[in-house]
Amino acid sequence: MSAAKHYLTDPTHTVLSALESLTRTNPSLLADLNNKIVYRNPSSIANPGNVSVVCGGGSGHEPGFAGFVGEGLLTACVAGTIFASPGAEQVRTCLQHRLPLESKGVLVIATNYTGDVLNFGMGVEKARALGKKVEMVVCGDDVGVGRQRSGKVGRRGLSGTALVVKICSALAEQGVGLDDCARVGRLVVNNLVSLGASLRRVHVPGHGIEEAREEEERLGPGLIEIGMGVHNEPGCEKVETDLPGLVEIMLRQMLDQNDKDRAYVKIEKTDETMLCINNYGGLSNLELAAVINEVCIQLNKNYGLKPRRIVQGVLFGSLDGPGFILSVLKLADTSLGPGKSIADLIDAPVNAIGWPRCVSGETWERKYELVPEKPREAEDEGQPSNLKRKSLGLMCV
Amino acid sequence: MSAAKHYLTDPTHTVLSALESLTRTNPSLLADLNNKIVYRNPSSIANPGNVSVVCGGGSGHEPGFAGFVGEGLLTACVAGTIFASPGAEQVRTCLQHRLPLESKGVLVIATNYTGDVLNFGMGVEKARALGKKVEMVVCGDDVGVGRQRSGKVGRRGLSGTALVVKICSALAEQGVGLDDCARVGRLVVNNLVSLGASLRRVHVPGHGIEEAREEEERLGPGLIEIGMGVHNEPGCEKVETDLPGLVEIMLRQMLDQNDKDRAYVKIEKTDETMLCINNYGGLSNLELAAVINEVCIQLNKNYGLKPRRIVQGVLFGSLDGPGFILSVLKLADTSLGPGKSIADLIDAPVNAIGWPRCVSGETWERKYELVPEKPREAEDEGQPSNLKRKSLGLMCV
Repeated sequence: MSAAKHYLTDPTHTVLSALESLTRTNPSLLADLNNKIVYRNPSSIANPGNVSVVCGGGSGHEPGFAGFVGEGLLTACVAGTIFASPGAEQVRTCLQHRLPLESKGVLVIATNYTGDVLNFGMGVEKARALGKKVEMVVCGDDVGVGRQRSGKVGRRGLSGTALVVKICSALAEQGVGLDDCARVGRLVVNNLVSLGASLRRVHVPGHGIEEAREEEERLGPGLIEIGMGVHNEPGCEKVETDLPGLVEIMLRQMLDQNDKDRAYVKIEKTDETMLCINNYGGLSNLELAAVINEVCIQLNKNYGLKPRRIVQGVLFGSLDGPGFILSVLKLADTSLGPGKSIADLIDAPVNAIGWPRCVSGETWERKYELVPEKPREAEDEGQPSNLKRKSLGLMCV
Repeated sequence: MSAAKHYLTDPTHTVLSALESLTRTNPSLLADLNNKIVYRNPSSIANPGNVSVVCGGGSGHEPGFAGFVGEGLLTACVAGTIFASPGAEQVRTCLQHRLPLESKGVLVIATNYTGDVLNFGMGVEKARALGKKVEMVVCGDDVGVGRQRSGKVGRRGLSGTALVVKICSALAEQGVGLDDCARVGRLVVNNLVSLGASLRRVHVPGHGIEEAREEEERLGPGLIEIGMGVHNEPGCEKVETDLPGLVEIMLRQMLDQNDKDRAYVKIEKTDETMLCINNYGGLSNLELAAVINEVCIQLNKNYGLKPRRIVQGVLFGSLDGPGFILSVLKLADTSLGPGKSIADLIDAPVNAIGWPRCVSGETWERKYELVPEKPREAEDEGQPSNLKRKSLGLMCV
């Protein structure tokens, strides 16, 4: 059970140590370890009057969300223990004491899980009772659980939440007011579909090895679980398929308008979109890149979609899970004018260690010249490679 | 054997697909899949007369090195199959046909493994015979294998190579000449010590499951292997210890001047340093952050070192290995004047998806105000948290 091996076995120490480490990798941050809050040093905030953006949730999802604290992203993050929401008092302390007093409002972003909605909701109410102007956006982007099963609870929050955080934070950084930040946050949620898949469940540090073995056995050796949550929640189905087959099923669940139980967002050929591919945390970058390629091929071929932006990496993980979450976001109009489109807000600079490196908006928008390959190959004097491009073409269609 | 599960089982397809995906996540790149070369579209290069920087090696180490191709980093990368060097003809093709013809020279950076040194060396010789001005820097930064065992072969190349790539590429981007780029590259290698540790070996896609089981059994359930390479090479010792114990052993092997077999670089209290913590690829970000914290505490306490920069993330991985490589780089003087110190070159902007997000140089250099915690806590009306800071303090000393 190598998946149950860890460098640290005390989960409390692990979480506190991970939070403290952020003050080392980003010297502009402070940590209130008693309340598991990571927050920007007030002296590092150029415009303390801007809306403050706060997010949080259980630990084990790093870099989401403490790794997103920094210029251009979150003002503060409130963390819980591994896979458990922080308490309402932690949230209240953050809102009352860890944000610039000058803020013209606070946007709280939470994922749609019972504990998070309850605790962040209570924390927000307490802060409002103390006179703070606070809005809360709850993110649910998962299509793994259809309407019939999820009922009034709504969709679970997956890594699309990181996109909501990025977009709302970039707006706040530009001095936009609280109501518009919250409105755009909800607009993003309503235009977002996500779905995860994994090769195995994860072992939580501190839990027994028997538990790890049981988790592994629940998912057979050749099976992939589709619709898995970020806290080992079971998915909607287990499949035995290759990557093209897997991606086909996933994109259908995300985008098929005929699936009445799941067609949460209408995304059509004419829509501009962005694609986010989130590593659960333990998938090799080699396989992740191959997944990205396959997803792009099928998005284009089967749905006529060519994403205007691709964000990839670990955003909102599940410890060392060997899986990935696909998100497609329809780039809805923010109605906020130039420089404030969804693409602009994704491109906006950040100074936080957790946000994945992406190429610049200019690189995405520019039309590069196609380079003629043939003439250059002709002057080549080496042996022709015995690697056939065909093999890739055959496997990817 | 969940470690042997993969989304793709054909290693050739996986590698080609991963390389092709880079042209999707960075539209300014092109891929010559026959030769496994990823390179910058010539029309995207603002100053084609600058020195071109090329790196490469086996696949399975992503983002190293194809993920580093882009503005401010590599001009091109030549990849091999998983854990195997590319051939000399691939390297020659890259140097001859995939770089701007206007380049005032080409710097080739290779890791110190027999195959890489041989193939990159032959490719460089062929390009020189064709009239190209090429310099080659070979990176060896591992202290896991001491002088007695490594002999004339020298140190193996670990993730410190990524720092050499970053620093040399930033110089090239500033228009610095080939000789200085190569000289600084060698200066960095000579001031760099690295060491890895992992909880298990990795399973290579396409290899049998029996092999995976054997690999797992070679390293017992409670053991950590120190000095492991990035291709499943055995380490120098297997230990059963906690994280503080592990970090203590690793830093001693890296920094102890009394270990005559291993004291490759003299790093003293008065030296300025940077710290790089590389994820082998499968360690959760939660544990990685806790490792960073422990390393910083011990570097300061036991060696009087407070790194001026910390770079963390997957730089040069080993598939989904649950391990990490520590590197300490002494910030030697480049003698190139303002804006070209090692720290400046690490801070320089990049437009490539593989380089990990770090905070800005300004954030590292600024002195932030200490915030008085007490008065704010005093006005707190909530319940005191029952989480004790003490527990962290006790465990980290």
